[in-house]
Amino acid sequence: MKAGPLEAGEASKDSSQKHGANRGISILDFILRIIAIVGTLGSAIAMGTTDETLPFVTQFIRFRARYNDLPTFTFFVVANSIVSGYLVLSLPLSIIHIVRSGAKGSRIILIIFDTAMLALLTAGASASAAIVYLAHKGNTRANWSAICQQFNSFCEHISGSLIGSFVGVAVFILLLLLSAVALSRR
Amino acid sequence: MKAGPLEAGEASKDSSQKHGANRGISILDFILRIIAIVGTLGSAIAMGTTDETLPFVTQFIRFRARYNDLPTFTFFVVANSIVSGYLVLSLPLSIIHIVRSGAKGSRIILIIFDTAMLALLTAGASASAAIVYLAHKGNTRANWSAICQQFNSFCEHISGSLIGSFVGVAVFILLLLLSAVALSRR
Repeated sequence: MKAGPLEAGEASKDSSQKHGANRGISILDFILRIIAIVGTLGSAIAMGTTDETLPFVTQFIRFRARYNDLPTFTFFVVANSIVSGYLVLSLPLSIIHIVRSGAKGSRIILIIFDTAMLALLTAGASASAAIVYLAHKGNTRANWSAICQQFNSFCEHISGSLIGSFVGVAVFILLLLLSAVALSRR
Repeated sequence: MKAGPLEAGEASKDSSQKHGANRGISILDFILRIIAIVGTLGSAIAMGTTDETLPFVTQFIRFRARYNDLPTFTFFVVANSIVSGYLVLSLPLSIIHIVRSGAKGSRIILIIFDTAMLALLTAGASASAAIVYLAHKGNTRANWSAICQQFNSFCEHISGSLIGSFVGVAVFILLLLLSAVALSRR
């Protein structure tokens, strides 16, 4: 390990270039987190406010559909709320990474939590997607009817609220990729 | 950047220590991948071979339940097969990391694919879990009956096959964490 003045200068130039690239990655990281907050929070609110009452009643049943009729949708709202809460809390760390682009420990912490949140969000989104599919198509073999034939507005709401959640999943995959690149470039 | 002989010696010792730690991480990575292969392949096979015919028929319906009666379970089998196939293909790279513990590019490639596969596996597992829950409990509000009351063995099969898949999800989270640590220690 020999370091002449010239090589030392090159090394420092190289290092400052790397820091510049890492700063760009950190800024992108910050923007992506804000997009994910909008997506997941929008999903949680859209699903949480879903409530449709049909304009007729029978003696036995009051035709009303809400998100918490199905436990999967409750899980969806909880998962999206947790993830958007985590994202808000992760913003300060993301800002620190813009300023101190050589940080290592805090990046690993973010990767651990990002991975866990990716799993949680994917679980909520895809479980709900499975139920939404069932609500639209039904299943003749299991004798489950397509409830969307009655509850139109309810079904539009729950289908739409999936979008923000899947955007969040895509953003988390990008975030993990960016973190890995930033960590390797330190 | 001054490097005396003593400091250079320390640096090289430090570097060899880091390589040793990275080798340990790579070996753990290899073992975890094999566990995940067993889990996901077992899940795919357990779900794919699920087939129950009840010992009575009526004029209208032949009481037979198979995994492909529900599209979600087909997705589950496909997702688990893809993930276990990917894991087998990733084993050579994992072995290369044991030998060349300073590798960087190939680790990032593994992180990208591991993240995508984590999302795919979680989606399959949780969508199926939502349907399995419905099969067990039914839903009175949507008028979906609990089919497990008739199809006992079918329900045991599909519930059991979820286990391997969720083990796979946990292993992928660990793998991503290990990769991040190895990348930061280079």
